[in-house]
Amino acid sequence: MGDRLARQLRFTVELDKLKQVLRRNSLGDGSRRENSAEHSWHLAMMAAILAEHANAAVDIGRVMQMVLVHDVVEIDAGDTFAYDPVGMLDQAERETCAADRLFSLLPPDQTEAVRGLWEEFEARETAEARFAVALDRLQPLLQNFECGGGTWRSHGVTEEMVRARCLPISGGSAALGAYADGLIEEAVARGMIGEGLTAGS
Amino acid sequence: MGDRLARQLRFTVELDKLKQVLRRNSLGDGSRRENSAEHSWHLAMMAAILAEHANAAVDIGRVMQMVLVHDVVEIDAGDTFAYDPVGMLDQAERETCAADRLFSLLPPDQTEAVRGLWEEFEARETAEARFAVALDRLQPLLQNFECGGGTWRSHGVTEEMVRARCLPISGGSAALGAYADGLIEEAVARGMIGEGLTAGS
Repeated sequence: MGDRLARQLRFTVELDKLKQVLRRNSLGDGSRRENSAEHSWHLAMMAAILAEHANAAVDIGRVMQMVLVHDVVEIDAGDTFAYDPVGMLDQAERETCAADRLFSLLPPDQTEAVRGLWEEFEARETAEARFAVALDRLQPLLQNFECGGGTWRSHGVTEEMVRARCLPISGGSAALGAYADGLIEEAVARGMIGEGLTAGS
Repeated sequence: MGDRLARQLRFTVELDKLKQVLRRNSLGDGSRRENSAEHSWHLAMMAAILAEHANAAVDIGRVMQMVLVHDVVEIDAGDTFAYDPVGMLDQAERETCAADRLFSLLPPDQTEAVRGLWEEFEARETAEARFAVALDRLQPLLQNFECGGGTWRSHGVTEEMVRARCLPISGGSAALGAYADGLIEEAVARGMIGEGLTAGS
């Protein structure tokens, strides 16, 4: 076996670890927390199904690759909770170190290509990245709504925080952004999103 | 919200259930069984990384879509263990019923497109399907090897059964087929694949 294939298979085996990285949100039925590998699969399926709702014409193959790859750095860096301001302080640094180690397991040309996908996602400048980020924000919204509040209730997340978190959805897809707004409104009306810690507590 | 988007989101929410379908093989560290959603993510990553090893030029975007979709029918039909001859008897029937219900949640044009991907995978006639099937056979081989035998040991699977199961790998990729052959040989030499129940027991 050549060195090239050996490196590719080494990376393949390493990827298995993303299945052990737990996110804060749970599955739709609330039975357990979701992991980053199955979350990424869900996003790739959403990309294929919802492509027509992107604000700009997108290369959907690239969007799919981007969402498949976007959380791989968590193998080393762990998942950072979206509503954890402390964890988010050094998130970029932790994830850059992770990218250095993980992507360089691959042959050099693929190191560059995969890192390029991850950096494009993080920069949110291309139409593909904006649509990918929109899906990444919409999916936990759907899961939390499905299980009657989920992370919102258990972590004292306020409507304002959810709205801020979901703002990038309309940047990738006006249609999905409008749907998200309506869903947040309904979640508030049903008491799924609490008052959190904002009222002087 | 239009009916079209409503159907797409209904399907999206339904997809969450694939995360609860457990396969027989475990993660590489043996800590728990793998589910079909994270397995599908792993295959899509492998498709992107290993594309150059396909026997024929393939549309890798289509291979990725195929592996992402190939297990969705298990939401209704459940996972059928590769070495369970009884379960495999009515597998096709169960999965066809599942495809009828699940894919028709989508708008009609997408029902047809997604079903087309699944049927193409099952038929194993195109270069894309053959490569997708190769990945689907290689990945559990890697996982079982990583955890020192896994399903092979716990279910009395013989070398002959593993070899038969892995035969389609070379049909999609001679290079990956050769690698798989070597890995099976090493697994036998290390005692990871047992004598099973073939010796008159």
